Amino acid sequence: MKTIGHIGEDALISRLLELVPTTHPALHTGPGDDCAVAEASRHEWQLLKTDAIVENVHFTAEASMRRVGWKAIARVISDIAAMGGRPQWFLVTIGMPKDYELEKIEQLYLGMADCLNKYGGVICGGESTRVSAEAGLVISIAATGMVKKRRLLLRSTAQRGDDIYVTGRLGGSLAGRHLDITPRLCEAHWLAAGRFATAMMDLSDGLAKDLPRLAGASGLGFCIDPARLPCHDNCSSEQALGDGEDYELLFTVNPRKTQRLAARWPEHFPDVPLACIGTMVASGEGMVLSGGWDHFR
Amino acid sequence: MKTIGHIGEDALISRLLELVPTTHPALHTGPGDDCAVAEASRHEWQLLKTDAIVENVHFTAEASMRRVGWKAIARVISDIAAMGGRPQWFLVTIGMPKDYELEKIEQLYLGMADCLNKYGGVICGGESTRVSAEAGLVISIAATGMVKKRRLLLRSTAQRGDDIYVTGRLGGSLAGRHLDITPRLCEAHWLAAGRFATAMMDLSDGLAKDLPRLAGASGLGFCIDPARLPCHDNCSSEQALGDGEDYELLFTVNPRKTQRLAARWPEHFPDVPLACIGTMVASGEGMVLSGGWDHFR
Repeated sequence: MKTIGHIGEDALISRLLELVPTTHPALHTGPGDDCAVAEASRHEWQLLKTDAIVENVHFTAEASMRRVGWKAIARVISDIAAMGGRPQWFLVTIGMPKDYELEKIEQLYLGMADCLNKYGGVICGGESTRVSAEAGLVISIAATGMVKKRRLLLRSTAQRGDDIYVTGRLGGSLAGRHLDITPRLCEAHWLAAGRFATAMMDLSDGLAKDLPRLAGASGLGFCIDPARLPCHDNCSSEQALGDGEDYELLFTVNPRKTQRLAARWPEHFPDVPLACIGTMVASGEGMVLSGGWDHFR
Repeated sequence: MKTIGHIGEDALISRLLELVPTTHPALHTGPGDDCAVAEASRHEWQLLKTDAIVENVHFTAEASMRRVGWKAIARVISDIAAMGGRPQWFLVTIGMPKDYELEKIEQLYLGMADCLNKYGGVICGGESTRVSAEAGLVISIAATGMVKKRRLLLRSTAQRGDDIYVTGRLGGSLAGRHLDITPRLCEAHWLAAGRFATAMMDLSDGLAKDLPRLAGASGLGFCIDPARLPCHDNCSSEQALGDGEDYELLFTVNPRKTQRLAARWPEHFPDVPLACIGTMVASGEGMVLSGGWDHFR
């Protein structure tokens, strides 16, 4: 019997998506980017995203539920931001064992409210269902966002020769930082408005997993200098590559704009490091990275 | 320690929704109806819905996964139909144990495709995550739909004196029929286009649970005649009231239109029974129903 553990997450998804309808004239970008992109009006795209976090996979039973609630919403806002968009409508699905403590669920919702009140977005509906006692809490968040058409940023539009940038610091998220994500909403809008980035995504599964995805979507390869990785304190470059759950922005910039970017970024975001870590190269050239997060390996 | 089992699903949801932002000028209807309703354009509303089904709660491990996939999508289309809308974009979240059989997940997706190909709708994205082996499969579907503004049907707009109708037959779904839902998409559009219904919803938790919700949303009471309930073969009126998972339409009609409805319905839907089961009355009058499906009781 072949199980999903045998083939891994990315192969599973592409195999399943061949079985279902995924294209439509009004769907600009379907599965494969941070969000789906659909026609909304003459000047705007609607972004659509779903994301789930599960007890004992993404957080422990001992975690502060208020921080878990924050994380659940912040992960989705990070994806919407990475496309250049603003969060709009949120649908919250909670699977809970029957004897789950009411106080903990209330803390979860207060954490979601903290994040929505800070970055925008409204809960317009939801679903609650029972799961088995052993399953623990399952939280699935679906959301929409809006982006002006000329500000949309995809994974698939990097150009050969572009420089590769990341915001913030990477690695070591499991020490606890993964619950205190800062979605890079302002930074992403500034990059989109200034037309700095040629392609962008957020780092959720680790640079070693996500950079090959951006490169693959753009039909390119990449070359990075591990010494230039902006590692968190006490983190190795290996951890910065593979730990995942950084929720920083990964983006590419035409070399003609890198000087202006380097000059203006610190004026706007003095507290957010910005690192140029490498260059996009032709497909088949450059390097191969392995590691990063896979749910089923 | 107070658990969610103590307070029940409806009380839990209203308590949680007080903690989070749920209102916005562009949000016509937030949590509480079959779908949320948000401004899309001058003439259209966007509908937003999320729904989940869980192994050992909504289906057994022995169920045909193709039928489970059909059910997962059909439940959401039923909600979109009940507002007068058409399905549009779908986001699919699957929580699976690591050793889950690949063949079963593929069957699940084929069942989703069956339903999407029949009723419309496209999968634009999704999420896969690991859950514990004991949890079994968790499937969460979020979707959007569109409805012309003049065709929107809510739960909250029934009028005192309206007649109460249900489509199809009720009860006994657990015998297996709950996996072969027929979303009443054509019927709902015909009712909306002909301006027959004053209020509408779909029956998911059983008439005993859902009719009080429609009446409550409309600020009214109701009176029904159990002898007029359209029961499935070998089902009592108690089962028709309480079993749930019927996915038929429940709607109210101004008495001036009931004659025209009774005359024209059989011409358009000769195979779908239509039953007038009672009348909307003032709040505090009429009857009280108990029973129906609650995930946490």
